[in-house]
Amino acid sequence: MSASLAAVTALDQADALRDFRERFEFPAGIVYLDGNSLGPPPKAALDELETAARREWGDGLIRSWNNAGWFSLPETLGDRVGALIGAKPGETIVTDTVSVNVYKALHAALALRPGRHTILAEADSFPTDLYMAEGVATSRPGTTLKLAHDDEPLESLIDDDTAVLLVNHVDYRTGVLRNMAAITKAAHAMGALVIWDLCHSAGALPIALNEANVDLAVGCTYKYLNGGPGAPAFIFAACRHHEALVQPLSGWWTHAQPFAMESRYRPAQGIKRLLCGTQPILSMRALKAALDLFDDVDLAAVRAKSIAMTELFMELVDPLCTEFGMRIITPRDPTLRGSHVSICHPNGYEIIQALISHGVIGDFRAPDIMRFGFTPLYLRYRDAFDAAGHLHDILRTETWREPRFAVRSVVT
Amino acid sequence: MSASLAAVTALDQADALRDFRERFEFPAGIVYLDGNSLGPPPKAALDELETAARREWGDGLIRSWNNAGWFSLPETLGDRVGALIGAKPGETIVTDTVSVNVYKALHAALALRPGRHTILAEADSFPTDLYMAEGVATSRPGTTLKLAHDDEPLESLIDDDTAVLLVNHVDYRTGVLRNMAAITKAAHAMGALVIWDLCHSAGALPIALNEANVDLAVGCTYKYLNGGPGAPAFIFAACRHHEALVQPLSGWWTHAQPFAMESRYRPAQGIKRLLCGTQPILSMRALKAALDLFDDVDLAAVRAKSIAMTELFMELVDPLCTEFGMRIITPRDPTLRGSHVSICHPNGYEIIQALISHGVIGDFRAPDIMRFGFTPLYLRYRDAFDAAGHLHDILRTETWREPRFAVRSVVT
Repeated sequence: MSASLAAVTALDQADALRDFRERFEFPAGIVYLDGNSLGPPPKAALDELETAARREWGDGLIRSWNNAGWFSLPETLGDRVGALIGAKPGETIVTDTVSVNVYKALHAALALRPGRHTILAEADSFPTDLYMAEGVATSRPGTTLKLAHDDEPLESLIDDDTAVLLVNHVDYRTGVLRNMAAITKAAHAMGALVIWDLCHSAGALPIALNEANVDLAVGCTYKYLNGGPGAPAFIFAACRHHEALVQPLSGWWTHAQPFAMESRYRPAQGIKRLLCGTQPILSMRALKAALDLFDDVDLAAVRAKSIAMTELFMELVDPLCTEFGMRIITPRDPTLRGSHVSICHPNGYEIIQALISHGVIGDFRAPDIMRFGFTPLYLRYRDAFDAAGHLHDILRTETWREPRFAVRSVVT
Repeated sequence: MSASLAAVTALDQADALRDFRERFEFPAGIVYLDGNSLGPPPKAALDELETAARREWGDGLIRSWNNAGWFSLPETLGDRVGALIGAKPGETIVTDTVSVNVYKALHAALALRPGRHTILAEADSFPTDLYMAEGVATSRPGTTLKLAHDDEPLESLIDDDTAVLLVNHVDYRTGVLRNMAAITKAAHAMGALVIWDLCHSAGALPIALNEANVDLAVGCTYKYLNGGPGAPAFIFAACRHHEALVQPLSGWWTHAQPFAMESRYRPAQGIKRLLCGTQPILSMRALKAALDLFDDVDLAAVRAKSIAMTELFMELVDPLCTEFGMRIITPRDPTLRGSHVSICHPNGYEIIQALISHGVIGDFRAPDIMRFGFTPLYLRYRDAFDAAGHLHDILRTETWREPRFAVRSVVT
């Protein structure tokens, strides 16, 4: 391999972020390259969860809705996420799931563009975004979902019926990073709005929603933000849209006075209109500690290390590609990629399973993509080096051909 | 007071359910009469949460989606809830919030009754049900929400445009228990479906959804089921409706093959069509332990003790009503009430705050209702006796007039 162990060790020694690894809980002997799917627990999150459960739920009981700030967690955590994505206070809220938030955002965007009926999305989008868009289209007569195929630029399909573009900031399969400012500007020039899906970028790189004049955004908190499995998602709406913000999931947490218990709906002001019902507090509290950790994080440094790590990994894997018929589909230009590297191989599934049995955890996305996430807060350059080494061993010895590695799991 | 301390102590000694109290975590010196709003933690739930966080999230990382059964939790927990509400396996699923599930259920019901456009609900319904119904009505052109006022029986308003009735099994304010079988039968006779909201009955009394021929139901798990603050809700659909079940929140967890990552939507079979997106696993795991506890519970015994406790409390409070201008609005006939007792007083808010300062936790619902929940798994008859005693003291000494008790909280 091109980079030597000595060189990699030197990189780790010089790494300004190296102390963050200590703040995460890790099983021994694991090279964890799946933080782009589920971040590991910050140690503080485990403690916070215990406090939330034993002290707040157990001792505080119902009183904790007021005394422990449970009721305002969507807003307080929302602003914490907002600070990481270039939002102003009061523009982001943590609630529900990405899927549900896509639904709200699409309805809100269609209402903000009356007379326009088309939703534009990428055919290669993360599927749930498309399924939710189909749900919106079928339940809202006259609405059409138009898909861009085969890297056809979304912007080129905008016409005067286009109400909104639904775009993935980082493509979950290829790792391609889209130009947020340029696409948003192009959409606005044609009178359309844009919803950005930040699932694969929030916490991984600096994001400047307001600088890019973004209208709406959604994202998850359990990948690069390390909020815990299925931790509640977030939704952003630029404050210029708040006055006219409507969405049909108008549950009591979106009401102007939830505890007035009125029978008629009166919307709250601002971002609270994008809430809905009672949120899972224990999951929210783990997320709180995960966000606390980001108070000490410089996202520019994270981004720089991410670029260096993905570059190192691709450099190490390049010779294997030629030898073993693999193909790196993640862009070489760092301005065009997120924080994971995707490699195609017809037996990608089996190779990933073999890697996991070696303690190197990546994941697989149909039909043939192996994904390796590089998360600078808790990974060392050495991890990239070791992962490439194990990958080489598995390909060279063809271990992946063992039948046990072909057994399909429910979640791949 | 009518019942003596000796008599109450004897009741506790003879109580077949008394050992369950030990299985819950409680702060010292509290009489907790708000389990109808938030159940206390089962001790096993606190341990389970730690296992889920440290072992499954921390050690298992992404592998726990398969290895710890995270992905199937909505179905496995759904069947556990289903067993408590008279559902067959495969008819109940744990997911999202009650509000979101009301939305799904209403859309599903409207789709099952094409040509009918009216949703019928009680004006005194728990508000979020109405707000979600408004959301459905405004986003689905032609749909009307019709409200029954002042105890007007919902059934009397059904006409040939009525698609669905949305009914609270137990009224959150008055504690009135509705006749599920009779109302469902009346609706069916007129060609309408019924959605039952079980928030204030699930876990509190035996429910027989299929025996009553119920179509759809929703409910929460953090009240009588003790699943934890904001624990995910459940939704039930009778299997006879599964084939034609559609709802617009068609996220990837409702897809026939979520990990095939197809760009077009293909619905899963059965109750999974009522899922949507990725669920908050930590909150789900606490709920699992809470449901485990119900394996040992005879709901008929719970119901019998609940009736005895609410009766005792009303008997103890009756003399105070005359003396201090209070009015019990919960039915005296036990077949007509759920598991909480509601008492009106113009200064109900202040009285509840004064009670809380005495360690007796009930809650307040606008405009003037004090609510006292009786949850037989962890309450003693002695708790009802002590609560009535503190209430008497507060009313007699007029402590509730202290200005500090008038300070309004966010959550009341």
